[in-house]
Amino acid sequence: MANRKLQLEPLTSKAFGPFGVVVETPDLSPESINEGHTLKFADLLPFDCDHEGGRVALHLYRSEARQLPLEIRDLERHPLGSQAFWPLSGRPYVVVVAPPGPAPEASKVRAFLARGHQAIQYHRGTWHHYQVSLEADSDYLVLDREGPGSNCDEFTLSEPLTIFL
Amino acid sequence: MANRKLQLEPLTSKAFGPFGVVVETPDLSPESINEGHTLKFADLLPFDCDHEGGRVALHLYRSEARQLPLEIRDLERHPLGSQAFWPLSGRPYVVVVAPPGPAPEASKVRAFLARGHQAIQYHRGTWHHYQVSLEADSDYLVLDREGPGSNCDEFTLSEPLTIFL
Repeated sequence: MANRKLQLEPLTSKAFGPFGVVVETPDLSPESINEGHTLKFADLLPFDCDHEGGRVALHLYRSEARQLPLEIRDLERHPLGSQAFWPLSGRPYVVVVAPPGPAPEASKVRAFLARGHQAIQYHRGTWHHYQVSLEADSDYLVLDREGPGSNCDEFTLSEPLTIFL
Repeated sequence: MANRKLQLEPLTSKAFGPFGVVVETPDLSPESINEGHTLKFADLLPFDCDHEGGRVALHLYRSEARQLPLEIRDLERHPLGSQAFWPLSGRPYVVVVAPPGPAPEASKVRAFLARGHQAIQYHRGTWHHYQVSLEADSDYLVLDREGPGSNCDEFTLSEPLTIFL
């Protein structure tokens, strides 16, 4: 049986809404601070990291560039916290998600093409594939939950999915 | 009376230690995750933001480039939380600090030249001047405390200080 093929969709707040949050500064209204020398875009990510004694932690991920088409099979979710990715490279990346639930459904997986100026935050519990960089190895700041408890569930789809542009 | 002149020092963890934290990924040992496709530099900032019901918030600051020498007179501190700056531009910036205390002492002000790959976090209560970009207008992610209470004290030095390279 042929792999199911999944075409990358443009990443928009509306399309990504069931899975998480997209941040793009052009959409936002900053305030002027520091005697007019700084624009402040305030409180951009709605962290949801304090369940069961959790806290916000900041990591840096250095993620290897991959080629499209890309075959994926493994998804994960973080039941105890949101997880956000802020690209530092300005390069595009791939965001693969499925709705919350006991297990991801292959027919409900979506793949988005994020532009380098777009940051994302997965809602707590959103199934997702790990971060995939395009064009070149790229760094991301990751705002994640740290704390007690088991915060990573993994699932392997019965058939792989092939992500293409 | 002539302004006091303050030469920029190189930003190192040791020199900046009394005032805060410097993060540089070359100093750190990452772990390999995501089937070997990602290096994770874990838990890079020791947030200290939960005093008096506070929480971590993420802002983006777009900060106008300034010329050196730069005359400064106003300092501020955040008594209820740490504040971190992660440069997104790769360009250098100026970090001006003074030790915690009821008021900053002009003789104890220090000025550091941060490189574009260096992130910093002020300890809670460290007096500092606001972020100053060099070379070109630059963006920073700012990890700050949000919450109830008064979290910004301001102080004007009796004489200006002139920061130079």
